[in-house]
Amino acid sequence: MKTIVLVSHPQLEESRTQRFLWESLPAQGVEWRHLEKHYPDGKIDVEQEQQLLKEQERIIFQFPLYWYSSPPLLKAWQDEVLTDEFIFGAKGSQLEGKEFGLVVSTAIPEREYQAGGRESFTTSELLRPFQAMAQKVGMVYLPSFLISQFDYQTENEQKALLIRYQQYLTKAYDPSLVSAEAWFREQLESWGKQGLTDQEGQLVDILIQQMEENRERLDDLNWTLREMKGY
Amino acid sequence: MKTIVLVSHPQLEESRTQRFLWESLPAQGVEWRHLEKHYPDGKIDVEQEQQLLKEQERIIFQFPLYWYSSPPLLKAWQDEVLTDEFIFGAKGSQLEGKEFGLVVSTAIPEREYQAGGRESFTTSELLRPFQAMAQKVGMVYLPSFLISQFDYQTENEQKALLIRYQQYLTKAYDPSLVSAEAWFREQLESWGKQGLTDQEGQLVDILIQQMEENRERLDDLNWTLREMKGY
Repeated sequence: MKTIVLVSHPQLEESRTQRFLWESLPAQGVEWRHLEKHYPDGKIDVEQEQQLLKEQERIIFQFPLYWYSSPPLLKAWQDEVLTDEFIFGAKGSQLEGKEFGLVVSTAIPEREYQAGGRESFTTSELLRPFQAMAQKVGMVYLPSFLISQFDYQTENEQKALLIRYQQYLTKAYDPSLVSAEAWFREQLESWGKQGLTDQEGQLVDILIQQMEENRERLDDLNWTLREMKGY
Repeated sequence: MKTIVLVSHPQLEESRTQRFLWESLPAQGVEWRHLEKHYPDGKIDVEQEQQLLKEQERIIFQFPLYWYSSPPLLKAWQDEVLTDEFIFGAKGSQLEGKEFGLVVSTAIPEREYQAGGRESFTTSELLRPFQAMAQKVGMVYLPSFLISQFDYQTENEQKALLIRYQQYLTKAYDPSLVSAEAWFREQLESWGKQGLTDQEGQLVDILIQQMEENRERLDDLNWTLREMKGY
Protein backbone atom coordinates (compact mmCIF):
# COMPACT_ATOMS: atom_id res chain seq x y z
CA MET A 1 0.00 0.00 0.00
CA LYS A 2 1.49 3.34 -1.12
CA THR A 3 -0.16 6.24 0.64
CA ILE A 4 0.27 10.01 0.62
CA VAL A 5 -1.04 12.18 3.47
CA LEU A 6 -1.64 15.72 2.28
CA VAL A 7 -1.70 17.69 5.50
CA SER A 8 -3.15 21.21 5.53
CA HIS A 9 -2.72 23.17 8.74
CA PRO A 10 -1.67 26.82 9.02
CA GLN A 11 -0.08 26.33 12.48
CA LEU A 12 1.01 22.72 12.43
CA GLU A 13 3.74 23.12 15.03
CA GLU A 14 1.21 24.37 17.58
CA SER A 15 -1.12 21.40 17.15
CA ARG A 16 -0.64 18.55 19.63
CA THR A 17 -2.98 16.35 17.57
CA GLN A 18 -0.95 16.79 14.40
CA ARG A 19 2.36 16.23 16.17
CA PHE A 20 0.99 13.03 17.66
CA LEU A 21 -0.17 11.81 14.26
CA TRP A 22 3.17 12.69 12.70
CA GLU A 23 5.09 10.83 15.41
CA SER A 24 2.91 7.76 14.97
CA LEU A 25 3.34 7.45 11.20
CA PRO A 26 4.06 3.91 10.02
CA ALA A 27 7.73 3.38 9.14
CA GLN A 28 7.12 2.48 5.50
CA GLY A 29 4.87 3.23 2.58
CA VAL A 30 3.49 6.55 3.79
CA GLU A 31 4.54 9.97 2.55
CA TRP A 32 3.59 12.89 4.81
CA ARG A 33 3.31 16.15 2.90
CA HIS A 34 2.57 19.34 4.81
CA LEU A 35 1.28 21.74 2.15
CA GLU A 36 1.82 24.98 4.10
CA LYS A 37 5.47 23.98 4.65
CA HIS A 38 6.02 23.08 0.99
CA TYR A 39 4.31 26.18 -0.29
CA PRO A 40 4.73 29.01 2.26
CA ASP A 41 4.03 31.55 -0.51
CA GLY A 42 0.99 29.62 -1.75
CA LYS A 43 2.53 28.90 -5.17
CA ILE A 44 1.81 25.24 -5.87
CA ASP A 45 4.01 23.12 -8.15
CA VAL A 46 1.19 21.53 -10.11
CA GLU A 47 3.29 19.10 -12.17
CA GLN A 48 5.11 17.76 -9.14
CA GLU A 49 1.86 17.30 -7.23
CA GLN A 50 0.25 15.48 -10.15
CA GLN A 51 3.28 13.19 -10.53
CA LEU A 52 3.16 12.35 -6.81
CA LEU A 53 -0.55 11.55 -6.97
CA LYS A 54 -0.10 9.13 -9.87
CA GLU A 55 2.26 6.99 -7.77
CA GLN A 56 -0.21 6.50 -4.91
CA GLU A 57 -2.74 3.80 -4.16
CA ARG A 58 -4.38 5.82 -1.37
CA ILE A 59 -4.66 9.60 -1.04
CA ILE A 60 -5.49 11.20 2.30
CA PHE A 61 -6.49 14.80 3.04
CA GLN A 62 -5.71 15.58 6.67
CA PHE A 63 -6.81 18.85 8.26
CA PRO A 64 -8.52 20.56 11.19
CA LEU A 65 -12.16 21.39 10.49
CA TYR A 66 -12.30 25.20 10.30
CA TRP A 67 -15.74 26.64 9.49
CA TYR A 68 -16.87 23.17 8.41
CA SER A 69 -14.22 22.75 5.72
CA SER A 70 -10.46 22.58 5.09
CA PRO A 71 -7.95 25.42 5.44
CA PRO A 72 -7.64 27.54 2.26
CA LEU A 73 -4.37 26.09 0.94
CA LEU A 74 -5.89 22.63 0.50
CA LYS A 75 -8.73 24.22 -1.49
CA ALA A 76 -6.15 26.06 -3.62
CA TRP A 77 -4.40 22.70 -4.11
CA GLN A 78 -7.67 21.12 -5.31
CA ASP A 79 -8.45 23.99 -7.69
CA GLU A 80 -4.94 24.07 -9.18
CA VAL A 81 -3.78 20.42 -9.19
CA LEU A 82 -6.99 18.71 -10.28
CA THR A 83 -7.00 20.27 -13.75
CA ASP A 84 -9.37 19.41 -16.57
CA GLU A 85 -6.48 17.75 -18.43
CA PHE A 86 -5.53 15.63 -15.39
CA ILE A 87 -9.07 14.49 -14.62
CA PHE A 88 -11.10 14.77 -17.80
CA GLY A 89 -8.29 14.47 -20.39
CA ALA A 90 -8.07 12.00 -23.28
CA LYS A 91 -6.47 9.35 -21.02
CA GLY A 92 -9.31 9.60 -18.50
CA SER A 93 -8.93 10.50 -14.84
CA GLN A 94 -5.38 9.95 -13.59
CA LEU A 95 -6.85 9.18 -10.16
CA GLU A 96 -9.30 6.51 -11.30
CA GLY A 97 -9.64 3.65 -8.84
CA LYS A 98 -7.37 5.10 -6.14
CA GLU A 99 -8.68 5.22 -2.58
CA PHE A 100 -9.43 8.57 -0.95
CA GLY A 101 -9.80 9.28 2.75
CA LEU A 102 -10.17 12.22 5.12
CA VAL A 103 -8.51 12.60 8.52
CA VAL A 104 -10.36 15.45 10.19
CA SER A 105 -9.74 16.85 13.65
CA THR A 106 -12.27 18.93 15.56
CA ALA A 107 -12.38 20.70 18.90
CA ILE A 108 -16.04 19.74 19.31
CA PRO A 109 -17.34 16.38 20.61
CA GLU A 110 -18.44 13.96 17.89
CA ARG A 111 -21.96 13.66 19.36
CA GLU A 112 -22.69 17.33 18.52
CA TYR A 113 -22.53 16.53 14.80
CA GLN A 114 -26.10 15.33 14.38
CA ALA A 115 -29.61 16.74 14.04
CA GLY A 116 -30.39 18.37 17.37
CA GLY A 117 -26.70 18.58 18.32
CA ARG A 118 -24.93 21.92 18.59
CA GLU A 119 -23.52 21.53 15.06
CA SER A 120 -26.86 20.35 13.58
CA PHE A 121 -25.26 18.42 10.71
CA THR A 122 -23.32 15.15 10.55
CA THR A 123 -19.70 15.22 9.44
CA SER A 124 -20.76 13.02 6.48
CA GLU A 125 -23.01 15.91 5.38
CA LEU A 126 -20.46 18.65 6.05
CA LEU A 127 -17.73 16.79 4.15
CA ARG A 128 -19.99 16.17 1.14
CA PRO A 129 -17.93 18.47 -1.14
CA PHE A 130 -14.95 16.11 -0.69
CA GLN A 131 -17.12 13.06 -1.34
CA ALA A 132 -18.45 14.71 -4.51
CA MET A 133 -14.87 15.46 -5.58
CA ALA A 134 -13.74 11.85 -4.99
CA GLN A 135 -16.70 10.59 -6.99
CA LYS A 136 -16.06 13.04 -9.84
CA VAL A 137 -12.42 12.00 -10.24
CA GLY A 138 -13.21 8.28 -9.97
CA MET A 139 -11.70 7.62 -6.54
CA VAL A 140 -13.14 5.24 -3.93
CA TYR A 141 -14.37 7.30 -0.96
CA LEU A 142 -13.38 5.71 2.36
CA PRO A 143 -15.26 6.33 5.62
CA SER A 144 -13.66 9.42 7.19
CA PHE A 145 -11.35 9.25 10.19
CA LEU A 146 -12.61 11.76 12.75
CA ILE A 147 -10.52 12.90 15.71
CA SER A 148 -12.60 14.80 18.26
CA GLN A 149 -11.15 16.61 21.25
CA PHE A 150 -7.83 14.78 21.15
CA ASP A 151 -6.52 16.65 24.19
CA TYR A 152 -9.31 15.32 26.40
CA GLN A 153 -8.62 11.67 25.54
CA THR A 154 -6.95 9.33 28.03
CA GLU A 155 -3.55 7.86 27.24
CA ASN A 156 -5.15 4.52 26.39
CA GLU A 157 -7.66 6.16 24.07
CA GLN A 158 -4.82 7.98 22.35
CA LYS A 159 -2.87 4.71 21.92
CA ALA A 160 -5.90 3.02 20.39
CA LEU A 161 -6.33 6.05 18.12
CA LEU A 162 -2.72 5.69 16.99
CA ILE A 163 -3.29 2.06 15.89
CA ARG A 164 -6.51 2.98 14.09
CA TYR A 165 -4.72 5.87 12.38
CA GLN A 166 -1.90 3.63 11.17
CA GLN A 167 -4.48 1.18 9.85
CA TYR A 168 -6.41 3.97 8.16
CA LEU A 169 -3.27 4.92 6.25
CA THR A 170 -1.99 1.47 5.31
CA LYS A 171 -4.45 -1.37 5.91
CA ALA A 172 -6.56 -2.73 3.06
CA TYR A 173 -10.09 -1.43 3.45
CA ASP A 174 -11.77 -4.54 4.80
CA PRO A 175 -13.27 -4.67 8.28
CA SER A 176 -12.69 -8.44 8.81
CA LEU A 177 -10.62 -9.86 11.66
CA VAL A 178 -8.47 -11.81 9.18
CA SER A 179 -7.47 -8.58 7.47
CA ALA A 180 -6.62 -6.93 10.82
CA GLU A 181 -4.48 -9.95 11.77
CA ALA A 182 -2.62 -9.85 8.47
CA TRP A 183 -1.95 -6.13 8.99
CA PHE A 184 -0.66 -6.63 12.56
CA ARG A 185 1.55 -9.46 11.34
CA GLU A 186 3.06 -7.26 8.64
CA GLN A 187 3.73 -4.50 11.16
CA LEU A 188 5.39 -6.89 13.59
CA GLU A 189 7.53 -8.43 10.86
CA SER A 190 8.64 -5.05 9.57
CA TRP A 191 9.59 -3.99 13.11
CA GLY A 192 11.48 -7.25 13.60
CA LYS A 193 13.82 -6.37 10.79
CA GLN A 194 14.71 -2.93 12.10
CA GLY A 195 17.57 -3.62 14.53
CA LEU A 196 15.78 -4.90 17.61
CA THR A 197 17.79 -6.75 20.26
CA ASP A 198 17.79 -10.56 20.06
CA GLN A 199 15.35 -10.73 22.96
CA GLU A 200 12.92 -8.26 21.34
CA GLY A 201 13.20 -10.16 18.08
CA GLN A 202 12.26 -13.39 19.86
CA LEU A 203 9.28 -11.66 21.46
CA VAL A 204 8.05 -10.56 18.02
CA ASP A 205 8.40 -14.14 16.74
CA ILE A 206 6.43 -15.43 19.72
CA LEU A 207 3.67 -12.84 19.14
CA ILE A 208 3.36 -13.83 15.48
CA GLN A 209 3.33 -17.54 16.39
CA GLN A 210 0.67 -16.89 19.02
CA MET A 211 -1.49 -14.99 16.54
CA GLU A 212 -1.22 -17.83 14.03
CA GLU A 213 -2.20 -20.41 16.62
CA ASN A 214 -5.18 -18.25 17.62
CA ARG A 215 -6.19 -18.02 14.00
CA GLU A 216 -6.00 -21.83 13.59
CA ARG A 217 -8.12 -22.32 16.68
CA LEU A 218 -10.68 -19.76 15.39
CA ASP A 219 -10.80 -21.54 12.04
CA ASP A 220 -11.36 -24.89 13.81
CA LEU A 221 -14.17 -23.39 15.89
CA ASN A 222 -15.80 -21.87 12.82
CA TRP A 223 -15.58 -25.24 11.09
CA THR A 224 -17.20 -27.03 14.04
CA LEU A 225 -19.97 -24.41 14.21
CA ARG A 226 -20.76 -24.86 10.52
CA GLU A 227 -20.91 -28.65 10.90
CA MET A 228 -23.31 -28.32 13.85
CA LYS A 229 -25.55 -26.00 11.87
CA GLY A 230 -25.56 -28.59 9.05
CA TYR A 231 -24.04 -26.34 6.37
CA MET B 1 -31.57 47.42 3.05
CA LYS B 2 -27.78 47.68 3.35
CA THR B 3 -26.07 44.78 1.58
CA ILE B 4 -22.49 43.74 0.96
CA VAL B 5 -21.57 41.31 -1.82
CA LEU B 6 -18.30 39.56 -1.06
CA VAL B 7 -17.20 38.29 -4.45
CA SER B 8 -14.50 35.64 -4.67
CA HIS B 9 -13.25 34.80 -8.15
CA PRO B 10 -9.61 34.32 -9.17
CA GLN B 11 -10.24 35.47 -12.80
CA LEU B 12 -13.15 37.84 -12.45
CA GLU B 13 -12.39 39.82 -15.61
CA GLU B 14 -12.68 36.64 -17.71
CA SER B 15 -16.11 35.73 -16.37
CA ARG B 16 -19.06 36.91 -18.45
CA THR B 17 -21.45 35.91 -15.65
CA GLN B 18 -19.67 38.05 -13.08
CA ARG B 19 -19.40 41.04 -15.43
CA PHE B 20 -23.13 40.80 -16.11
CA LEU B 21 -23.91 40.70 -12.39
CA TRP B 22 -21.60 43.62 -11.72
CA GLU B 23 -23.21 45.71 -14.47
CA SER B 24 -26.68 44.96 -13.14
CA LEU B 25 -26.00 46.00 -9.54
CA PRO B 26 -28.71 48.19 -8.03
CA ALA B 27 -27.72 51.86 -7.88
CA GLN B 28 -27.96 52.19 -4.12
CA GLY B 29 -27.51 50.25 -0.93
CA VAL B 30 -25.19 47.55 -2.29
CA GLU B 31 -21.43 47.37 -1.81
CA TRP B 32 -19.60 45.06 -4.22
CA ARG B 33 -16.31 43.82 -2.80
CA HIS B 34 -14.06 41.65 -4.94
CA LEU B 35 -11.75 39.95 -2.43
CA GLU B 36 -9.03 38.92 -4.91
CA LYS B 37 -8.78 42.54 -6.07
CA HIS B 38 -8.64 43.93 -2.52
CA TYR B 39 -6.12 41.36 -1.37
CA PRO B 40 -3.94 40.29 -4.32
CA ASP B 41 -1.28 39.08 -1.88
CA GLY B 42 -3.85 37.22 0.25
CA LYS B 43 -3.22 39.39 3.33
CA ILE B 44 -6.65 40.24 4.70
CA ASP B 45 -7.35 43.39 6.74
CA VAL B 46 -9.36 41.71 9.47
CA GLU B 47 -10.40 44.85 11.35
CA GLN B 48 -11.63 46.62 8.23
CA GLU B 49 -13.61 43.54 7.15
CA GLN B 50 -15.20 43.18 10.57
CA GLN B 51 -16.14 46.87 10.62
CA LEU B 52 -17.75 46.56 7.18
CA LEU B 53 -19.74 43.50 8.25
CA LYS B 54 -21.16 45.25 11.30
CA GLU B 55 -22.74 47.93 9.10
CA GLN B 56 -24.67 45.46 6.92
CA GLU B 57 -28.17 44.06 7.12
CA ARG B 58 -27.50 41.40 4.49
CA ILE B 59 -24.22 39.63 3.68
CA ILE B 60 -23.78 37.77 0.39
CA PHE B 61 -20.99 35.39 -0.62
CA GLN B 62 -20.79 35.28 -4.42
CA PHE B 63 -18.52 32.79 -6.19
CA PRO B 64 -18.19 30.16 -8.91
CA LEU B 65 -18.55 26.61 -7.55
CA TYR B 66 -15.08 25.05 -7.89
CA TRP B 67 -14.81 21.48 -6.58
CA TYR B 68 -18.12 21.94 -4.81
CA SER B 69 -17.01 24.92 -2.70
CA SER B 70 -15.72 28.49 -2.88
CA PRO B 71 -12.32 29.65 -4.17
CA PRO B 72 -9.60 29.58 -1.48
CA LEU B 73 -9.49 33.30 -0.69
CA LEU B 74 -13.09 33.30 0.56
CA LYS B 75 -12.21 30.39 2.86
CA ALA B 76 -9.18 32.34 4.10
CA TRP B 77 -11.52 35.29 4.70
CA GLN B 78 -13.85 33.10 6.78
CA ASP B 79 -10.99 31.64 8.83
CA GLU B 80 -9.39 35.02 9.50
CA VAL B 81 -12.29 37.47 9.79
CA LEU B 82 -14.74 35.36 11.78
CA THR B 83 -12.59 35.26 14.90
CA ASP B 84 -13.59 33.83 18.27
CA GLU B 85 -13.70 37.36 19.68
CA PHE B 86 -15.95 38.61 16.86
CA ILE B 87 -18.39 35.70 17.04
CA PHE B 88 -18.17 34.21 20.52
CA GLY B 89 -16.90 37.24 22.45
CA ALA B 90 -18.45 38.82 25.54
CA LYS B 91 -20.80 40.98 23.42
CA GLY B 92 -22.10 37.91 21.54
CA SER B 93 -21.94 37.39 17.81
CA GLN B 94 -21.46 40.65 15.91
CA LEU B 95 -23.42 39.10 13.03
CA GLU B 96 -26.47 38.06 15.05
CA GLY B 97 -29.73 38.49 13.14
CA LYS B 98 -28.18 39.62 9.85
CA GLU B 99 -29.30 37.87 6.67
CA PHE B 100 -26.86 35.66 4.76
CA GLY B 101 -27.12 34.53 1.16
CA LEU B 102 -25.07 32.72 -1.47
CA VAL B 103 -24.87 33.61 -5.16
CA VAL B 104 -23.27 30.58 -6.80
CA SER B 105 -22.51 30.11 -10.48
CA THR B 106 -21.91 26.72 -12.08
CA ALA B 107 -21.06 25.46 -15.54
CA ILE B 108 -23.30 22.44 -15.03
CA PRO B 109 -27.08 22.35 -15.50
CA GLU B 110 -29.11 22.65 -12.30
CA ARG B 111 -30.93 19.34 -12.91
CA GLU B 112 -27.65 17.40 -12.48
CA TYR B 113 -27.53 18.40 -8.81
CA GLN B 114 -29.78 15.66 -7.47
CA ALA B 115 -29.65 11.98 -6.58
CA GLY B 116 -29.14 10.15 -9.88
CA GLY B 117 -27.86 13.28 -11.62
CA ARG B 118 -24.24 13.60 -12.73
CA GLU B 119 -23.36 15.53 -9.57
CA SER B 120 -25.30 13.17 -7.25
CA PHE B 121 -25.88 15.78 -4.55
CA THR B 122 -28.15 18.82 -4.32
CA THR B 123 -26.59 22.26 -4.03
CA SER B 124 -28.33 22.55 -0.64
CA GLU B 125 -26.25 19.56 0.49
CA LEU B 126 -23.00 20.74 -1.10
CA LEU B 127 -23.34 24.22 0.41
CA ARG B 128 -24.04 22.81 3.90
CA PRO B 129 -20.75 24.15 5.33
CA PHE B 130 -21.96 27.71 4.60
CA GLN B 131 -25.36 26.98 6.12
CA ALA B 132 -23.63 25.61 9.23
CA MET B 133 -21.47 28.73 9.40
CA ALA B 134 -24.50 31.05 9.11
CA GLN B 135 -26.25 29.15 11.87
CA LYS B 136 -23.18 29.19 14.11
CA VAL B 137 -22.77 32.97 13.87
CA GLY B 138 -26.50 33.63 14.33
CA MET B 139 -27.31 34.76 10.78
CA VAL B 140 -30.54 33.99 8.92
CA TYR B 141 -29.73 31.65 6.02
CA LEU B 142 -31.56 32.68 2.83
CA PRO B 143 -32.33 30.26 -0.02
CA SER B 144 -29.29 30.31 -2.32
CA PHE B 145 -29.28 32.06 -5.69
CA LEU B 146 -27.98 29.57 -8.26
CA ILE B 147 -26.83 30.62 -11.73
CA SER B 148 -26.38 27.61 -14.02
CA GLN B 149 -24.85 27.83 -17.50
CA PHE B 150 -25.36 31.56 -17.83
CA ASP B 151 -23.84 31.61 -21.32
CA TYR B 152 -26.51 29.25 -22.66
CA GLN B 153 -29.41 31.42 -21.46
CA THR B 154 -31.50 33.48 -23.86
CA GLU B 155 -31.49 37.27 -23.61
CA ASN B 156 -34.91 37.21 -21.97
CA GLU B 157 -33.79 34.62 -19.44
CA GLN B 158 -30.77 36.77 -18.63
CA LYS B 159 -32.96 39.85 -18.16
CA ALA B 160 -35.24 37.96 -15.80
CA LEU B 161 -32.15 36.72 -13.96
CA LEU B 162 -30.99 40.32 -13.58
CA ILE B 163 -34.25 41.34 -11.86
CA ARG B 164 -34.15 38.31 -9.56
CA TYR B 165 -30.51 39.08 -8.73
CA GLN B 166 -31.32 42.68 -7.83
CA GLN B 167 -34.17 41.47 -5.65
CA TYR B 168 -31.94 38.88 -4.02
CA LEU B 169 -29.56 41.65 -2.97
CA THR B 170 -32.05 44.27 -1.83
CA LYS B 171 -35.63 43.02 -1.47
CA ALA B 172 -37.01 42.04 1.95
CA TYR B 173 -37.09 38.28 2.15
CA ASP B 174 -40.83 37.70 1.67
CA PRO B 175 -42.21 35.90 -1.36
CA SER B 176 -45.56 37.78 -1.40
CA LEU B 177 -46.76 39.84 -4.34
CA VAL B 178 -47.21 42.85 -2.08
CA SER B 179 -43.53 42.77 -1.19
CA ALA B 180 -42.50 42.48 -4.86
CA GLU B 181 -44.74 45.46 -5.73
CA ALA B 182 -43.24 47.56 -2.96
CA TRP B 183 -39.74 46.67 -4.19
CA PHE B 184 -40.55 47.58 -7.81
CA ARG B 185 -42.09 50.86 -6.64
CA GLU B 186 -38.94 51.74 -4.69
CA GLN B 187 -36.77 50.97 -7.71
CA LEU B 188 -38.93 53.11 -10.00
CA GLU B 189 -38.97 55.97 -7.52
CA SER B 190 -35.20 55.88 -7.05
CA TRP B 191 -34.71 55.92 -10.83
CA GLY B 192 -37.15 58.84 -11.13
CA LYS B 193 -34.89 60.96 -8.98
CA GLN B 194 -31.78 60.31 -11.05
CA GLY B 195 -32.02 62.89 -13.83
CA LEU B 196 -34.52 61.35 -16.21
CA THR B 197 -36.15 63.57 -18.86
CA ASP B 198 -39.59 65.05 -17.99
CA GLN B 199 -41.24 62.54 -20.27
CA GLU B 200 -39.46 59.57 -18.66
CA GLY B 201 -40.34 60.94 -15.23
CA GLN B 202 -44.02 61.08 -16.19
CA LEU B 203 -43.84 57.49 -17.46
CA VAL B 204 -42.47 56.38 -14.09
CA ASP B 205 -45.30 58.20 -12.29
CA ILE B 206 -47.86 56.52 -14.53
CA LEU B 207 -46.32 53.09 -13.88
CA ILE B 208 -46.44 53.61 -10.13
CA GLN B 209 -50.06 54.89 -10.32
CA GLN B 210 -51.01 51.87 -12.44
CA MET B 211 -49.42 49.48 -9.95
CA GLU B 212 -51.30 51.13 -7.07
CA GLU B 213 -54.62 50.87 -8.90
CA ASN B 214 -53.93 47.20 -9.65
CA ARG B 215 -53.18 46.65 -5.99
CA GLU B 216 -56.48 48.30 -4.94
CA ARG B 217 -58.42 46.13 -7.37
CA LEU B 218 -56.63 43.01 -6.08
CA ASP B 219 -57.46 43.98 -2.50
CA ASP B 220 -61.13 44.49 -3.46
CA LEU B 221 -61.24 41.10 -5.14
CA ASN B 222 -59.64 39.42 -2.12
CA TRP B 223 -62.21 41.10 0.12
CA THR B 224 -65.13 39.91 -2.01
CA LEU B 225 -63.72 36.36 -2.09
CA ARG B 226 -63.44 36.28 1.70
CA GLU B 227 -67.04 37.55 2.07
CA MET B 228 -68.30 34.83 -0.27
CA LYS B 229 -66.42 32.14 1.68
CA GLY B 230 -68.02 33.48 4.85
CA TYR B 231 -64.84 34.43 6.69
